[in-house]
Amino acid sequence: MKVGIADTTFARVDMGRHAIDELKKHASIAIERYTVPGIKDLPVACKKLLEERGCALVIALGMPGGAEKDRMCAHEASQGLMLAQLLTNKHIIEVFVHEDEAEDDRTLAWLAERRAREHAINAVKILLAPRQLEKEAGTGQRQGFPDAGPARQ
Amino acid sequence: MKVGIADTTFARVDMGRHAIDELKKHASIAIERYTVPGIKDLPVACKKLLEERGCALVIALGMPGGAEKDRMCAHEASQGLMLAQLLTNKHIIEVFVHEDEAEDDRTLAWLAERRAREHAINAVKILLAPRQLEKEAGTGQRQGFPDAGPARQ
Amino acid sequence: MKVGIADTTFARVDMGRHAIDELKKHASIAIERYTVPGIKDLPVACKKLLEERGCALVIALGMPGGAEKDRMCAHEASQGLMLAQLLTNKHIIEVFVHEDEAEDDRTLAWLAERRAREHAINAVKILLAPRQLEKEAGTGQRQGFPDAGPARQ
Amino acid sequence: MKVGIADTTFARVDMGRHAIDELKKHASIAIERYTVPGIKDLPVACKKLLEERGCALVIALGMPGGAEKDRMCAHEASQGLMLAQLLTNKHIIEVFVHEDEAEDDRTLAWLAERRAREHAINAVKILLAPRQLEKEAGTGQRQGFPDAGPARQ
Amino acid sequence: MKVGIADTTFARVDMGRHAIDELKKHASIAIERYTVPGIKDLPVACKKLLEERGCALVIALGMPGGAEKDRMCAHEASQGLMLAQLLTNKHIIEVFVHEDEAEDDRTLAWLAERRAREHAINAVKILLAPRQLEKEAGTGQRQGFPDAGPARQ
Repeated sequence: MKVGIADTTFARVDMGRHAIDELKKHASIAIERYTVPGIKDLPVACKKLLEERGCALVIALGMPGGAEKDRMCAHEASQGLMLAQLLTNKHIIEVFVHEDEAEDDRTLAWLAERRAREHAINAVKILLAPRQLEKEAGTGQRQGFPDAGPARQ
Repeated sequence: MKVGIADTTFARVDMGRHAIDELKKHASIAIERYTVPGIKDLPVACKKLLEERGCALVIALGMPGGAEKDRMCAHEASQGLMLAQLLTNKHIIEVFVHEDEAEDDRTLAWLAERRAREHAINAVKILLAPRQLEKEAGTGQRQGFPDAGPARQ
Repeated sequence: MKVGIADTTFARVDMGRHAIDELKKHASIAIERYTVPGIKDLPVACKKLLEERGCALVIALGMPGGAEKDRMCAHEASQGLMLAQLLTNKHIIEVFVHEDEAEDDRTLAWLAERRAREHAINAVKILLAPRQLEKEAGTGQRQGFPDAGPARQ
Repeated sequence: MKVGIADTTFARVDMGRHAIDELKKHASIAIERYTVPGIKDLPVACKKLLEERGCALVIALGMPGGAEKDRMCAHEASQGLMLAQLLTNKHIIEVFVHEDEAEDDRTLAWLAERRAREHAINAVKILLAPRQLEKEAGTGQRQGFPDAGPARQ
Repeated sequence: MKVGIADTTFARVDMGRHAIDELKKHASIAIERYTVPGIKDLPVACKKLLEERGCALVIALGMPGGAEKDRMCAHEASQGLMLAQLLTNKHIIEVFVHEDEAEDDRTLAWLAERRAREHAINAVKILLAPRQLEKEAGTGQRQGFPDAGPARQ
């Protein structure tokens, strides 16, 4: 089974490397990496990984800036990732870390690594352990920051 | 007849369980469940349920957070659910409960259960009792909070 | 010739009934009605009316609430109606009355009826009297509230 | 060669007439006109002109109102015109004049005519004189209001 | 190998010329240029370059104005460029310079040239040196303004 890693040169943390490292810990999976300049280049890269390079799933990693224009770029990229999934019937796990989610570079690097790793585990579950996800349904899981947990009645 | 249940580990209430319970009360329907990490993973899961797993309709349940970024995620997920319906000519009932619709955890859990159950009934009507929906046309039905009722002239 | 009427149980006025009544005044047209819970369920209902039930045109009637989230739902529904038209090459006349367009229930009911009826007439013109529309090009027609009229130089 | 003119009864200026008049000054072109009620009806009308009535290009003319809801309608119409182009591989020249671009009716009528005529000339260039457009690349051309001109270093 | 250059007469800098000049420095590439009036005309031009004129990749250059309406136009154009990529499985490098990114004409011209050139280099890397992009993954590259650089832990 092959998993695609699509990432950018724009991001300020090598999230692709962390995702690949985590994937290899959990499963014997071949990796196909595709690095593009920015997040708006990710959707077609993901679609090519799914349709032309035999990937069963792609993890798309990006780091939008904190300005208004950057948020719009992230929105357009997300719409593209959505469409790419619906045109291929395959999952693309979007792992975006917004620069303004962290107060300083150190936290940003920590958050980006952690989110990339936790989403890599999600990717493995989608492909190989769907019943595990079903057990966690409605339990308030988060990737990066601590889990919110279930709302108790 | 098979109905799909697509839900998330991000949600803080197990809405899928409530929807399934309600469906089974009203009709003899087979259930196919597909749990994904977050709401943006729902659209392709729904499309796969409709196209690859033989579902006649899918109920997509999610719980977006209360921040601006979460609202954008919900919007992108909704656009994906819309497109998935138009590409398959089948209904996907979107059941989203925004975390900021409820003042506390207790209310959130109550609202999520109630909305999931009421939409499950809607799903049954769409599939098995379309004339019942026609009778309720323009009567101000709501799911979760009380009905608004008709505007009288 | 068959015209589809897609409407919702969420709306607080039975706009579908008014549209059907008006259509029957102006032309000998068969009606196919499809009532769904909310406006986001309308696009796939319209597409099914056009592709599976032989309608030449659909009138989609809905009544979005006045909150920010409702406006977003209306936007997503509108995007779906647009896509459904472009995938079928057939018209869907969107008749949305926003709850906050009227000050009270009485005005809301009046506005909803009037707009439904005037758009039903538009539907007849599109199907049977396109030259009539051409004569009215650029004359500031409105549906519901009074016409704006042409801007004179 | 045939050019489509899609316009609305909602607009307060007969922009279609101005566009047709201008087209006929510059080239021997057959005209196919299609008038619809509002701007959200334009995209499918354009697609039908391109796919069912043999037009090589369509000019879509509309006049959105000045309220927030009108801007959203214009946005949805623009997204539809974009998709219609991408599904047909043909140009649709969008000529929208927002009511709030002009201070009074007189200016509105002037602006709408001028913009319609200048875009009609653009349509002729796209079809018959692409090298002319290439010569004007990056020169700050505007339609309606005065040209911005090039930014000099 | 052929690369498409899609640009506009609306832009106030001849970014297409700079991109072509830079491309020719780095690789022996045939150029196909397609100039349109505005940024919303770019997506279909790009799709035609990819599907009808044999381009392997297109660089789409535009300069949105600084007003709210211009930002919406840029958003719609970006959505179109995204869709064009997903329908063709080929890259379109979006090079937009917003007029309000620069304080004066001189800076605008400088920024537009620099961004066009740096994206032209990205285009060459995507086509001919994908491993070079992979080496730069997560290093905070920017086009135009100085690189942000990596976030160090």
